[in-house]
Amino acid sequence: MATEYHVRHFQEELEHVKARLLEMGGLAEERVRESVRSLTTRDHGLIEKVLTGDAPINQLHIEIDDRCFKLLALHQPMAVDLRFIVAALKINTDLERVGDLAVNIAEAAQRYLQHPPVKELIDIPRMADIAQRMLRDALDAYVHRDALLAQRVLDEDDELDALKTLVFRDLLAYMLHTPATIEPALDLILVSRHLERIGDHATNVAEDVIFMVSARDVRHHQGEGA
Amino acid sequence: MATEYHVRHFQEELEHVKARLLEMGGLAEERVRESVRSLTTRDHGLIEKVLTGDAPINQLHIEIDDRCFKLLALHQPMAVDLRFIVAALKINTDLERVGDLAVNIAEAAQRYLQHPPVKELIDIPRMADIAQRMLRDALDAYVHRDALLAQRVLDEDDELDALKTLVFRDLLAYMLHTPATIEPALDLILVSRHLERIGDHATNVAEDVIFMVSARDVRHHQGEGA
Repeated sequence: MATEYHVRHFQEELEHVKARLLEMGGLAEERVRESVRSLTTRDHGLIEKVLTGDAPINQLHIEIDDRCFKLLALHQPMAVDLRFIVAALKINTDLERVGDLAVNIAEAAQRYLQHPPVKELIDIPRMADIAQRMLRDALDAYVHRDALLAQRVLDEDDELDALKTLVFRDLLAYMLHTPATIEPALDLILVSRHLERIGDHATNVAEDVIFMVSARDVRHHQGEGA
Repeated sequence: MATEYHVRHFQEELEHVKARLLEMGGLAEERVRESVRSLTTRDHGLIEKVLTGDAPINQLHIEIDDRCFKLLALHQPMAVDLRFIVAALKINTDLERVGDLAVNIAEAAQRYLQHPPVKELIDIPRMADIAQRMLRDALDAYVHRDALLAQRVLDEDDELDALKTLVFRDLLAYMLHTPATIEPALDLILVSRHLERIGDHATNVAEDVIFMVSARDVRHHQGEGA
């Protein structure tokens, strides 16, 4: 069965999957960046670009799923390779959801721009930076099978959660003080929730990497000590 | 390779995975029901029960993942069986997230109960009913490989989205009219978003079922006509 051709073809296909996932991660990150920038710079054109630009990610999503299925069906990989491919299937789903969340952010931005600005936006761009870095690190960790880097992603998620709480309290104060800000402030709260969820997807990827590398299941064991 | 014993063992193992997924779906649905009931009946004990009761679902999540991996590694299934197992892996992730969302709803309920009620809750329990039915139908569709039932789940999601918009507008009116309701109304809005996401997870499951049954990819093609 496992002829040299067969093995080489399998390795080449794995490299394709990896490359495509990285491409998809780059696209997802870019769309998150653009969606938040459209909000902070009040750029209607950029909003439109994010709202209408999800075809490439969706196309990649289908292609990667398809490649993984074929790898499983044709090569019947074992152990490490099997975990790598199943992780790819899961990561693929996570990245596609990140793309959807960028659309949700752009939708919130669109509503937000119908009102005067509530305040200068500082913490939301910070949240976006962290979420993007988490995504990038999680994918790097996957490609390089780097459990240490994956662990760092899990730690960064705490930072993101803390900022989300800060944003919420801050905006709540505006809403209570100036009822005219209620509608736009609500949209900013939603944006911060979307960014939190992007961080959650990066966390999922990181957990898959740790499981893949160590075959140890870190899921559901956070905070139970070292 | 494929001795009679081997084949029988494989089929038995598939049945185990199915049974465990149904069990997990039942648990997830129950936790969603309890979380929303804790909100509508202002039941602190029930909130506590939801907040502290996620161990069984998390345990099942790990067990099902493990069973699927073993099936893939030991039996190297092809075509239909392969799609069935990969779908199980994805559904498993979706159900685990539904369990997390029940916790999020209970957390919002806990904050909500610190204030007087904003209004009688009618649409939120309706959203919960729809989301639970979607989950149940999606899992039934998986177990019976029923693409028609899966399609019905996709249709129900529109109903859920419409209710979410209704809830939002309704609560926004309260917030604008009576600033004292801002904090608790925000938590109700968050609950409606969590329920929407539960519907999204049921939708993911339904899409996996349609893909599994027909090997046709309905994802990213909604609304492009029949």
